[in-house]
Amino acid sequence: MLIFISELIGTMLLILLGDGVVANVTLNKSGMKGAGSVQITFAWGLAVLLPAFIFGSSSGAHFNPALTLALAAEGSIGWNVVPTYITGQLIGAFLGAVLVYVLFKGQFDLTEDAGTKLGVFSTGPSVPNTGLNLLSEAVGTFVLVFAIKGIGNVKDIAPGVDKLLVFGIIVSVGMSLGGLTGYAINPARDLGPRIAHALLPIKGKGDSNWKYSWIPVAGPVIGALVAVLLYNAIPW
Amino acid sequence: MLIFISELIGTMLLILLGDGVVANVTLNKSGMKGAGSVQITFAWGLAVLLPAFIFGSSSGAHFNPALTLALAAEGSIGWNVVPTYITGQLIGAFLGAVLVYVLFKGQFDLTEDAGTKLGVFSTGPSVPNTGLNLLSEAVGTFVLVFAIKGIGNVKDIAPGVDKLLVFGIIVSVGMSLGGLTGYAINPARDLGPRIAHALLPIKGKGDSNWKYSWIPVAGPVIGALVAVLLYNAIPW
Amino acid sequence: MLIFISELIGTMLLILLGDGVVANVTLNKSGMKGAGSVQITFAWGLAVLLPAFIFGSSSGAHFNPALTLALAAEGSIGWNVVPTYITGQLIGAFLGAVLVYVLFKGQFDLTEDAGTKLGVFSTGPSVPNTGLNLLSEAVGTFVLVFAIKGIGNVKDIAPGVDKLLVFGIIVSVGMSLGGLTGYAINPARDLGPRIAHALLPIKGKGDSNWKYSWIPVAGPVIGALVAVLLYNAIPW
Amino acid sequence: MLIFISELIGTMLLILLGDGVVANVTLNKSGMKGAGSVQITFAWGLAVLLPAFIFGSSSGAHFNPALTLALAAEGSIGWNVVPTYITGQLIGAFLGAVLVYVLFKGQFDLTEDAGTKLGVFSTGPSVPNTGLNLLSEAVGTFVLVFAIKGIGNVKDIAPGVDKLLVFGIIVSVGMSLGGLTGYAINPARDLGPRIAHALLPIKGKGDSNWKYSWIPVAGPVIGALVAVLLYNAIPW
Repeated sequence: MLIFISELIGTMLLILLGDGVVANVTLNKSGMKGAGSVQITFAWGLAVLLPAFIFGSSSGAHFNPALTLALAAEGSIGWNVVPTYITGQLIGAFLGAVLVYVLFKGQFDLTEDAGTKLGVFSTGPSVPNTGLNLLSEAVGTFVLVFAIKGIGNVKDIAPGVDKLLVFGIIVSVGMSLGGLTGYAINPARDLGPRIAHALLPIKGKGDSNWKYSWIPVAGPVIGALVAVLLYNAIPW
Repeated sequence: MLIFISELIGTMLLILLGDGVVANVTLNKSGMKGAGSVQITFAWGLAVLLPAFIFGSSSGAHFNPALTLALAAEGSIGWNVVPTYITGQLIGAFLGAVLVYVLFKGQFDLTEDAGTKLGVFSTGPSVPNTGLNLLSEAVGTFVLVFAIKGIGNVKDIAPGVDKLLVFGIIVSVGMSLGGLTGYAINPARDLGPRIAHALLPIKGKGDSNWKYSWIPVAGPVIGALVAVLLYNAIPW
Repeated sequence: MLIFISELIGTMLLILLGDGVVANVTLNKSGMKGAGSVQITFAWGLAVLLPAFIFGSSSGAHFNPALTLALAAEGSIGWNVVPTYITGQLIGAFLGAVLVYVLFKGQFDLTEDAGTKLGVFSTGPSVPNTGLNLLSEAVGTFVLVFAIKGIGNVKDIAPGVDKLLVFGIIVSVGMSLGGLTGYAINPARDLGPRIAHALLPIKGKGDSNWKYSWIPVAGPVIGALVAVLLYNAIPW
Repeated sequence: MLIFISELIGTMLLILLGDGVVANVTLNKSGMKGAGSVQITFAWGLAVLLPAFIFGSSSGAHFNPALTLALAAEGSIGWNVVPTYITGQLIGAFLGAVLVYVLFKGQFDLTEDAGTKLGVFSTGPSVPNTGLNLLSEAVGTFVLVFAIKGIGNVKDIAPGVDKLLVFGIIVSVGMSLGGLTGYAINPARDLGPRIAHALLPIKGKGDSNWKYSWIPVAGPVIGALVAVLLYNAIPW
């Protein structure tokens, strides 16, 4: 139960702050419109960092089905808790996106472009290409999970400093690879808000681009599994 | 007495550096005019971080009546010290704003727009809407107080690393939600400087927008109370 | 002798990296021209942080005559070592500025504006006003020294975390108050490079603005002395 | 063998994230095109930080032949392992650059300018001048290696905080000196990707600027050697 609550509230915070920064810098009339990708990537890093500290000891602070599956695959957590994790993550991501919509309703109403509105909720490719977009999401998530494993295994590190690096990992993937597909690197982060986009009565919204929606689900899962496989294959 | 002095000087530093960065990047002729919201949000984070370290052990470094009230409501501090805290915070915020005015007097005199001048002192909404503006301040402060509680309860963390996260919390709320209402998330931060704006002989100033002024007071108090309620309801 | 060497090399590194970033973002043909004040303030913070770690245990890493004088005034160091500190700081600052000139000689030669060239070396006010400019330098240095004192007195802090905050202090003063006078907040940082500007055969340089040069010397000394006075007057 | 694997994978990650950010902010159609040098320098810092934590205890996390040679020269590592290090670094850098090309193939195809494409892989001077360009690379690497030595010798520092400073060093050199020659400060970082540029079938690519290629090899080696010489000459 604590795992479910932690993953739900944690992922809700993640999406509130993460989808929030996209709304904050892209919607018309927002006081920070146009701030650009330094602010977007920095804020997504913090959006993961804060709930990671708050819920680290109660659920391990996954907030990401790809990470949950990879940790189950390598035996770090039992398969029996996986549904609890993923359900909490998806519900939290959905609720976080709903809250972003409510908060920014005035700004959504004053924004014409349907693509900009969808972009607040979910990711999309800058150059559509199924194979490369899938690879982009897989590589980004590989870096995420490989680095989480690596930093979790540093022998001598002051407690808390390791968690600070979660911020560094998220910012790094965003700054270096984010322009390819918007670095979902997390199925819940993309799918939960996309469902919210489909259901919410957003003024002048377009379609929810469902034909792309499997890529930020499958890519991260593949990348996370390859990361734990490779990490555990290295003769440390 | 130490609590009063600490909260007064700490909040004065907070507003000197916080209102300072707004003056620094928005007033005409300032050497950093136009730097944008990455600098504003980063600097506000530091404006809280520095006094938080300096006065952490002498007063707990609240600098924020909403936080003070929430900690009293959950019983972490006694109600009897609440007036001492809030008086210190309001006086400090007022004095910090006066100092920003004095330092930037040359730049204020060379700035035409009355809204820009008020914006150095106090916050305002990008899309006026009483309910949503109140919600925006409540949600921002919820994140602030919920995260402060959460990080304060991390069991194993090197001393000092927890305080570094105060910076992360403030920057996160600003970067992700700041374009809505300017993220006062602190009644003293908004009210103290607004009183200064009303009293100071600022050349070509407009009105102090008093009809909005209750929102950055009530919203943060509501958000802070909900945060401690929810935090303490979770079966950690 | 170790104090002299440490302060000399440390201040040289400080100016190499600090005047370096100004050259890097303002001179024509530099690959990072136009990067703006986020980069300038962030890089100055690092320019202090790196030598602070390297030379912290050998000289205390002052690199700043105002800090040295304030620490002597409160009795933390003896007056007899003050000349050693300040001589090392001034020579180091001069040599750092010479190295910046040599490295960026191609870019200096391709830059027309004499004010831009002087700006790489030394500070100047955005709105000239003797009293307010002096106050600006005093207040900036007050924050610097008050925060250094405060963080140095935090009782429970993991070693090294305190030094990280030196970065935060410098960035904070720069981001919040830097547009007033360029935040010298250090007599050596301004005077050493100004002497280099006067002596070096810089193509198309203008005068070295000597009439302003006493302000970034006197202001910081006043601010630093007030900071230790106030800090020690608080009944901690 | 673990050294070889660690240096290879670590350097591959370094170049994936480092050359990645240049692609991400300079190639046409990338979602983050135009983000500028704050993002480039910040992301390069993280590109070094992440593998430094992951591989710190298995190889020392050099990822840089100049650092490897300097540590051998001062006797910190044996000359016999130097070829293992450098081979791993060069192969890793080559593979990282290949991966960046594959990921950004769509964006490369839509970018006209041959110089922009080469700039993703390797460095070049903003003002060509053999002596000064060599000096720029030597000074940048001097700062890198001198600071690594200095921080490695801080006596009292919480474990992990020292490694965080690696980020600060890389960002500092980039922000302050990067506009001169693109701060290779690492022979493998420049040579491995340049070989990849020469071999890969990049649409509309120009030549690989081989006549410049010796400078980001020789400059860093000279700077690193001078750094350990000077560091060890100081009477600590």
